[in-house]
Amino acid sequence: MTFKQHQDASGFTLPFEAITAAHDRIRERIIETPLLESAALNALVGARVLVKAESLQKTGSFKFRGACNRALQLAPHERSGGIVAWSSGNHALAISAVCAELGVPATILMPLDAPRAKVDGAKSYGAEVRLYDRQTEDREALGREIADRTNAVIVPPYDDPEIMAGQGTVGLELLAQAREAGLKPDAVLASASGGGLIAGVATAVRTTLPDAQVFAVEPEGFDDHARSLAAGARVRNEPGAQSICDSLHVPTPGELTFSVNHRLLTGGLTVSDTEVRRAMRVAFETLKLVAEPGGAAPLAALLAGKLDVSGKTVVTVLSGGNVDADMFQSAFS
Amino acid sequence: MTFKQHQDASGFTLPFEAITAAHDRIRERIIETPLLESAALNALVGARVLVKAESLQKTGSFKFRGACNRALQLAPHERSGGIVAWSSGNHALAISAVCAELGVPATILMPLDAPRAKVDGAKSYGAEVRLYDRQTEDREALGREIADRTNAVIVPPYDDPEIMAGQGTVGLELLAQAREAGLKPDAVLASASGGGLIAGVATAVRTTLPDAQVFAVEPEGFDDHARSLAAGARVRNEPGAQSICDSLHVPTPGELTFSVNHRLLTGGLTVSDTEVRRAMRVAFETLKLVAEPGGAAPLAALLAGKLDVSGKTVVTVLSGGNVDADMFQSAFS
Repeated sequence: MTFKQHQDASGFTLPFEAITAAHDRIRERIIETPLLESAALNALVGARVLVKAESLQKTGSFKFRGACNRALQLAPHERSGGIVAWSSGNHALAISAVCAELGVPATILMPLDAPRAKVDGAKSYGAEVRLYDRQTEDREALGREIADRTNAVIVPPYDDPEIMAGQGTVGLELLAQAREAGLKPDAVLASASGGGLIAGVATAVRTTLPDAQVFAVEPEGFDDHARSLAAGARVRNEPGAQSICDSLHVPTPGELTFSVNHRLLTGGLTVSDTEVRRAMRVAFETLKLVAEPGGAAPLAALLAGKLDVSGKTVVTVLSGGNVDADMFQSAFS
Repeated sequence: MTFKQHQDASGFTLPFEAITAAHDRIRERIIETPLLESAALNALVGARVLVKAESLQKTGSFKFRGACNRALQLAPHERSGGIVAWSSGNHALAISAVCAELGVPATILMPLDAPRAKVDGAKSYGAEVRLYDRQTEDREALGREIADRTNAVIVPPYDDPEIMAGQGTVGLELLAQAREAGLKPDAVLASASGGGLIAGVATAVRTTLPDAQVFAVEPEGFDDHARSLAAGARVRNEPGAQSICDSLHVPTPGELTFSVNHRLLTGGLTVSDTEVRRAMRVAFETLKLVAEPGGAAPLAALLAGKLDVSGKTVVTVLSGGNVDADMFQSAFS
């Protein structure tokens, strides 16, 4: 697949065929996560709620799909140098695991204050983890320096067409699973950090069902997609915001992702930490799923009535389950 | 399907075709639960561990399969009378939900001290719940009296060929999923209460892979299958035993189930509450699954090294996720 048509990021669109090609490429290596439904959850929301349980994906989040799609396209001469990536979380785990599967070296830049479990997780797959100081070091410059020295390929977490195409396979799968159940989604919700997941999902959904609505969900204080969509241009979050949704702490939408998202998304929804904790509890009780805060945000929006879905069929992507026990238990206190 | 060949329970075998027929009957109504694998879990056990996540089934346990298979075979004249069942847990939820789907009345006998969440769960599906006193009332006599009066069919939790056949579809699915992943299980583990799940699974597995080993897993104090298999005849548990595995508190194996199990099972394994709590924690951390204690017992046996599976491929059925928040959190303390 070539994406060279557009020189200018603002003209970028993700071809639907890039997603179907990604699916053909990765399907043997990913888990087809189930589309779950609970009568009790339906009653709470007043709609048919289908939950795409992507927390059950390898490495505990959808990020494995994009990482896998990108890594499988390394040229033969690129494989010995491997991949460099920076992330404090799910992208790090996904790149580490994919590289381990493919026998390719991985170097991950993680902040000194990254959760111990995530650092250990990346190391457990055999990745080389380089810790850096958020205050004094520039991770992108460090990453480029390492890539130049080791002849490695930099794989960004979202602003990359093949990453978006890989994440878009979540959309392909949920559409096929809904169709098999005889259902046609009226709306689809997924959380947005850099916007790669929602860009891929929106492309799959709106190509197949042009009338379906697609919403990005974000925590309060990190509502850059909601405000950027309303403004028609990328805006930044104010510094200093706090949220338990650690996987959604990105200052502004990606360039390529926003080019896709501003055309395809219906809008953005915003949720509080309290609403997210309730959604984590409801996912435990009604679906028997472990949701990380960022993964529970779309369900939180539904439960909090941020969208009128009364009597409709709505799909919510539960995108990750990488949460430590203390944070998980905070949903019950 | 007719099961009339054997007048004597001890001669009963479950035909493989009863399981494939059950699968054809129920497949549109059940969730094909995923077969999950985690690199971290594999490292902990030292084997390839495939986890059949039946906690994600409708109503949170495998019981929905058997209930569905039985209820779909009600004769037209039986539908108005509906179903009577007794259970303090997962069978109650499954019968209630299936009857709600099929528009058939359900009456569930539950003990006065049943968990509130399970009583409320059964009621939420529209079942009529009749509470009884464990000390002074005989639930089977009560159930028969209600069935006679209302013209209802009694559906037992395990000692019924169609219930066993329904539970056996767990085995059919896991075999197909393993085959699709290019894997051949050396051993399969599932928990045993009355023995319906393990009887169905063993029939599916040993018919397809005669050399595979199949083990029943039970909590300490409720190891009636392990001891009955060793003795070659059904024995009872000593009264007064305690275990956090509330779904596995049955005094002795079923008659029909034991007739199947004593021919097909390799043996029984026993786990402590501490080992079960560790398995619940590991399922949370590595698989992002909510496991109830009884559902985590087979994983507990693997993690505690109760079986030498070094370098082998082993499937463990995680059979339910109906656990309240307090009990779940006890796995982390």
